[in-house]
Amino acid sequence: VSTYPVWGWGGPADEPSRADLEALAPLVAETTGVPVQDPLTPAPLPEIPPSARLGTLPPSLRELASEDPADRARHGLGRSYRDLVRALRADLAHVPDLVLRPRDEQDVTAVLDWASSTGTPVIPFGGGTSVVGGVEPVGLDRAVSLDLSRLAGLVEVDGASRAVRLRAGTLGPAAEEALKPYGLTLRFYPQSFERSSVGGWVATRAAGHFSTRLTHVDDLVESVRAVTPTGLWESRRLPGSGAGPSPDRLLLGSEGTLGVITETWLRAQPRPQHRWSATLAAPDFATGADAVRQLVQAGLAPATCRLVDAAESALTGTLPTGEAALVLGFESLLLPLGAETDAALALCRDAGLRVVEAGDRGAAGESWRSTFIRAPYLREQLVLLGVLVETFETAVTWDRLEGLVTQVRAAVTDALVRVCGGGRVTCRLTHVYPDGAAPYFTVLAPSRRGSEVAQWDEVKAAASEALLAAGGTITHHHAVGRDHWPWYDRQRPEPFARLLAAGTAAVDPVGILNPGVLLPRA
Amino acid sequence: VSTYPVWGWGGPADEPSRADLEALAPLVAETTGVPVQDPLTPAPLPEIPPSARLGTLPPSLRELASEDPADRARHGLGRSYRDLVRALRADLAHVPDLVLRPRDEQDVTAVLDWASSTGTPVIPFGGGTSVVGGVEPVGLDRAVSLDLSRLAGLVEVDGASRAVRLRAGTLGPAAEEALKPYGLTLRFYPQSFERSSVGGWVATRAAGHFSTRLTHVDDLVESVRAVTPTGLWESRRLPGSGAGPSPDRLLLGSEGTLGVITETWLRAQPRPQHRWSATLAAPDFATGADAVRQLVQAGLAPATCRLVDAAESALTGTLPTGEAALVLGFESLLLPLGAETDAALALCRDAGLRVVEAGDRGAAGESWRSTFIRAPYLREQLVLLGVLVETFETAVTWDRLEGLVTQVRAAVTDALVRVCGGGRVTCRLTHVYPDGAAPYFTVLAPSRRGSEVAQWDEVKAAASEALLAAGGTITHHHAVGRDHWPWYDRQRPEPFARLLAAGTAAVDPVGILNPGVLLPRA
Repeated sequence: VSTYPVWGWGGPADEPSRADLEALAPLVAETTGVPVQDPLTPAPLPEIPPSARLGTLPPSLRELASEDPADRARHGLGRSYRDLVRALRADLAHVPDLVLRPRDEQDVTAVLDWASSTGTPVIPFGGGTSVVGGVEPVGLDRAVSLDLSRLAGLVEVDGASRAVRLRAGTLGPAAEEALKPYGLTLRFYPQSFERSSVGGWVATRAAGHFSTRLTHVDDLVESVRAVTPTGLWESRRLPGSGAGPSPDRLLLGSEGTLGVITETWLRAQPRPQHRWSATLAAPDFATGADAVRQLVQAGLAPATCRLVDAAESALTGTLPTGEAALVLGFESLLLPLGAETDAALALCRDAGLRVVEAGDRGAAGESWRSTFIRAPYLREQLVLLGVLVETFETAVTWDRLEGLVTQVRAAVTDALVRVCGGGRVTCRLTHVYPDGAAPYFTVLAPSRRGSEVAQWDEVKAAASEALLAAGGTITHHHAVGRDHWPWYDRQRPEPFARLLAAGTAAVDPVGILNPGVLLPRA
Repeated sequence: VSTYPVWGWGGPADEPSRADLEALAPLVAETTGVPVQDPLTPAPLPEIPPSARLGTLPPSLRELASEDPADRARHGLGRSYRDLVRALRADLAHVPDLVLRPRDEQDVTAVLDWASSTGTPVIPFGGGTSVVGGVEPVGLDRAVSLDLSRLAGLVEVDGASRAVRLRAGTLGPAAEEALKPYGLTLRFYPQSFERSSVGGWVATRAAGHFSTRLTHVDDLVESVRAVTPTGLWESRRLPGSGAGPSPDRLLLGSEGTLGVITETWLRAQPRPQHRWSATLAAPDFATGADAVRQLVQAGLAPATCRLVDAAESALTGTLPTGEAALVLGFESLLLPLGAETDAALALCRDAGLRVVEAGDRGAAGESWRSTFIRAPYLREQLVLLGVLVETFETAVTWDRLEGLVTQVRAAVTDALVRVCGGGRVTCRLTHVYPDGAAPYFTVLAPSRRGSEVAQWDEVKAAASEALLAAGGTITHHHAVGRDHWPWYDRQRPEPFARLLAAGTAAVDPVGILNPGVLLPRA
């Protein structure tokens, strides 16, 4: 029986074959320089007996419950490198006792009532694509996974306000499909788009791939509805408000600790009428970064503004010249782009960049997005070939950007030599702001079979220490989960942590909601 | 002795003379139709003896303290109509026992330590321009006003990131003056600009006069530093972050209940290079609103986009034709505006609007802003002439805008007839969003001397009920304070209120920070 549903990104048809891996192997070694190993054979699923730890479930909840071993195994892990490796090795230390799939909000309330009365931890599960240990029941003597996949679909469209009401379990493609007849799109494409859910985006403060403006889900949210253990949390639909601190901004990033998000009103848009893209070459990353800073500070807001360092440009085929690549894309609803793109090119030339190609975008944007969204499929193949492959990201103000990138590169390179005997770390800017940018790092290294998790944990710790020391945030859009906890704990203001802990206890007095993320540990 | 410092908007030279008022009187009657009365003579300041309610102050705090009666009287009131009227009548029911002016953060800590140990309520006071009872010690057996005016000035400029570190007590003009040598501006102009403070903007989630994009202080804030009774709350300077719920977004709108904001890093900008403005005429408000909706939904982002109803247009001289006026302004850092403004005009024409005038802006923008910022001086003269004059504002999604404006107009008109025997309510849109707009209402009515507060309270209650019932927010940018509390209490999600109350108690265990705003009342 294939274990792909437990560890893989896609559906049954997406599982890589031995032939796929053998075809890929020489390419990997050639392009990355990282030696490949014989393809790993996924371990069979271990025996996962029905759990007796929960006691008897009320009849009303029994019909929502799944005890299926593969189902439970899948729900105990996200999709980080350490998750992938552990699933492939059937190293399933934390499996929820049950998966519950509510059909509606009443079911969610019933689950939380039962969980509160029995003290059972509940881990909300949207698409299960967390890369930070957000859904793994670590250190809990029992837990249920609350899978929201049945709470899916478009509920309502307000065409006048261009806002749409979506159930939390709706996955990216289903949301887009449902909005198409209305001529609307969310224009929200995180790399997990295919597999992640609307509610998960809100709970984790996700970001899409656009580099500027409406790219954080925070800015798309008009209102949120969540079930808490002590009642319904629903904000008014408002385009703006100054009435007290924003309740939505507290649910954004709450990672399941404050309530189970069941619905949200999101701001939608029509598709852009005009598109343009260009690839430019920068002699080095710092020169490219300076051009990018000037662009955004001049009030230009390229939809795509990815500065890719020379090594990553060569590796991904973006620009095989040994230069850093700046991929620029502009889009517009109504106005033609000429003035904007001319100004952008002129500014980049003045800043020392060379225009490699530029012009009307056509299908190039969709093609790039498709590659971007397919990346997780490539990654799992690399993992099977024994390559340690993972990413991490941050954000920092412009004054500290160069220092941060240099220090993080050095710390990670050093850790890779120590831990893996070598490897490579590359960097790109994925999101840019007038006051800073979000560097995104990719690590590729030879792994030692059986030690992958320990290897990555050591590299990741070195990276995280360097990020914090250089003034960055522990995460720009991957959330905190359990994996980032030690650094998040040092980053956040101390009184804010106390407020969050006490406030959460008021909303969730028994402490059933996703224990172990965000809050001070008891 | 003049009581102008207690009730007036400006400095000693700004006090209106009897001759000013006599000159204004016939104009008021003519333009507003509201009958004027003999100018009110401000009542002398009553005797305000030193308070014995605080016990002995520690010597270190004594040098920060003022017992001056006028100083204390000024600090017990904001600048709403009801504040103005009460101050003019020397109806000072709530006067703080002491005004404390810390020189630095250590002083703030010392004040909070003393206040916590003695259970003394502390009301942070920035510029004292609250129009919602934010600084008034209502229902407290004693209180000190913590005046932050000495914690002022520019501390640091990060030119690369275009971010500036300002002390909380810095007033608008001082902030702009300090940034000028760096070629930067905050571009943040609330109507209170002259008299309000940076820390006050953050604490109250203030908004500037620009209609789109960077107009809420929320979006300017890069990080905040606040002293709480249980330690320093300081967030990292970050251009963006996905690490947990945003700590800054909790301080934004906290209105002094979570800590005393001492500093903030704000995003600054250079001055725009290109400006353009136009006045258009709409046959009615609904047609104008529809044009505005189409503009912002087409991705155009006019810096100014004020739709003023026919009555207010006539009254203010914006457009004396009996039509609604749309005042449009575009600004740009780098790109010429032609394409954008042509498209805006074409779209407005197609939507049924008529272009009255359009062209390069020159000094028109500054001149408009200057009138806008001088409005409080006009208002206090109207009040002296016996006119009830006040404003309130909200925000609502486009689908509900027309209904809200109609219902609020009806409710307020009805209340004015009942309470004042007549009067007028006019409306403009001040801020616009792709998913909605912020209507701003102005009320002018004859007041009954001695009953002004009761009159306004009744009208305001009718307005607030109508706002909530029609789907609006109780405030778009005037904050909650004590005056909006009953409606805020119904607007906010119940679990959020519980979270805020419990979380605040964890940060401020004795409950000394601005008791009576935001939180459930004990």
